[in-house]
Amino acid sequence: MPQPTITWTTNHVKLIDQTKLPGKLVHLHCRDVKSLWKAIKSLSVRGAPALGVAAAYGVVLAAKSFKGTNKKKFRSHILKNCKYLATSRPTAVNLFHGLDTMKEVLRKGKNRTVAQLKKDLKDKADELYKNDQKVCRQMGDHGARLIKSRQNIMTVCNTGSLATVDYGTALGVMYSAKKKRKNFKVYSCETRPLLQGARLTTWELMRAKIDTTLICDNMAATLMNQNKVDAVFTGADRIAANGDTANKIGTYNLAVLAKHHKIPFYVVAPTSTFDPKITSGKKIPIEQRDKQEVRGFAKQQTAPKKVSTYNPAFDVTDHKLITAIVTEKGIIKSPTRKKIREVLGRK
Amino acid sequence: MPQPTITWTTNHVKLIDQTKLPGKLVHLHCRDVKSLWKAIKSLSVRGAPALGVAAAYGVVLAAKSFKGTNKKKFRSHILKNCKYLATSRPTAVNLFHGLDTMKEVLRKGKNRTVAQLKKDLKDKADELYKNDQKVCRQMGDHGARLIKSRQNIMTVCNTGSLATVDYGTALGVMYSAKKKRKNFKVYSCETRPLLQGARLTTWELMRAKIDTTLICDNMAATLMNQNKVDAVFTGADRIAANGDTANKIGTYNLAVLAKHHKIPFYVVAPTSTFDPKITSGKKIPIEQRDKQEVRGFAKQQTAPKKVSTYNPAFDVTDHKLITAIVTEKGIIKSPTRKKIREVLGRK
Repeated sequence: MPQPTITWTTNHVKLIDQTKLPGKLVHLHCRDVKSLWKAIKSLSVRGAPALGVAAAYGVVLAAKSFKGTNKKKFRSHILKNCKYLATSRPTAVNLFHGLDTMKEVLRKGKNRTVAQLKKDLKDKADELYKNDQKVCRQMGDHGARLIKSRQNIMTVCNTGSLATVDYGTALGVMYSAKKKRKNFKVYSCETRPLLQGARLTTWELMRAKIDTTLICDNMAATLMNQNKVDAVFTGADRIAANGDTANKIGTYNLAVLAKHHKIPFYVVAPTSTFDPKITSGKKIPIEQRDKQEVRGFAKQQTAPKKVSTYNPAFDVTDHKLITAIVTEKGIIKSPTRKKIREVLGRK
Repeated sequence: MPQPTITWTTNHVKLIDQTKLPGKLVHLHCRDVKSLWKAIKSLSVRGAPALGVAAAYGVVLAAKSFKGTNKKKFRSHILKNCKYLATSRPTAVNLFHGLDTMKEVLRKGKNRTVAQLKKDLKDKADELYKNDQKVCRQMGDHGARLIKSRQNIMTVCNTGSLATVDYGTALGVMYSAKKKRKNFKVYSCETRPLLQGARLTTWELMRAKIDTTLICDNMAATLMNQNKVDAVFTGADRIAANGDTANKIGTYNLAVLAKHHKIPFYVVAPTSTFDPKITSGKKIPIEQRDKQEVRGFAKQQTAPKKVSTYNPAFDVTDHKLITAIVTEKGIIKSPTRKKIREVLGRK
């Protein structure tokens, strides 16, 4: 596996700046909460699981910046920074899950000093980091059973080592299948407007020596119609209690196409992506992004400067269109509220 | 209506260079067959009906360049140039239809001198030009009946004045609906890889003061799911005898989505787009274009330089997914071989 996408280095957070890929592999060094917030907002770091870990380390940065020993002030400083980090992106629940986990450290540590709490927070962030690595490999092992040799797999956005600490969700399944010596081919949808499929997924898969073909998003249907797609694998940014799944814009498109062409459609996501408080996909908040992303790409203006646009970062796929959700705890076939509750171990 | 996309000016063909839009409105002056061939190949001029007229004027350029009075040599010179022009793009049948019409002038003009034939060819090209203008307005009038006020229309690629002499097929329907004082809104799919929707359709519709919103191709499904699309209107590059329709890549995607969401899907095309010799869509030749179109975005390289790509210029929509085909001769609802034959007036 390549170097981690996000790590704690000496006294700060080190991230691959994904906005520069595939042209350049450069790192961002975030030494304060604000620079980390900016890195999340600008998508220098992205991918639901990676955002959970990034947010946790953001809290560690906040803790480090606190001077003094007053516990009440420390607590309010941390909570303020958690609130700030939560404003970076509204859809990926893993980010909030990471922040909630860090806040729990404060709640449980009522008898701890500020210095001890600082250590506890760092330990918890490291635990989330290691857990992400473990969970990705578990999902990979479960999901690899769904891939047969000589199959063609379609995917969207980036769900690989760049979307997690270092392995991936949907791409993690492909890495595991490759380890099991399965031969398969991947069609990577470019994923407008920010082209994570074109820029990041192809870059990752080519480095992993997996046979990869890049297509524009609007070419998926015709490939399916030619029987050139055997399965679709995607990640998830938030999964409602009934299995409805918010993921990168274009995912719902693929799910409808897969259904029409009778192709299995799989979502790969850790259980931290489930949000049991949200009863259905209709209630998932969807981030609207800047018009300029649709009017062009990078520095290239393509559309008229003043044209109206519609630019949701995510769409929601009805659980009825999902063949199975692959989690670290196993595969949930034809997901329903009941089956999900069983896997999450909640009543 | 704005200035024509293609015209004969004094002694040459004048075209809007569509590769420069929406940034700059500049013209190309094609004074020989080769420069016209290049303009077609590079998509400086595109759109099935416009290609028919462009090809016809290409033959006029070929005729002009012939020196002498030897009819046999003239004939072989013209046929050679027709063959050459036919190699520019393989899918749009209107191009071949334009060339066939010009060759017929030669066949019928056995008793005409070279000078007379030169004039006949020019007259025939002018006739095709005027016919395109007339036919577009007829399609517009028929199709406008399908648009109601307050509806949201979705379209793909460019099927407007830039795709014809000066009015359009699917966009022509919108111009006619606007003339009839209907209020409606248009979602223009950007149409990767060459972004005709983002660059050309938005430019045209904004000039015509039609309410236009640009979306990335992968956002169509989620808009439909939110009941924000009442009808899809597209053009066509070639229609088989059974109604299967080749059109810009992404059209089939929209047709499947429209069916899933129970939204009418209309194709707008002159009868010259039908190819009765082709029995079904499976037999329509599909142009594969350069890898670099998918690897980047205008001049911006986005994907790894060596990544494999798949880049068909067109896809084929099964006639069963088409609610109706709007032609200059009327509307063919639920198109079948029999209904199409009746409208084309062939046995």
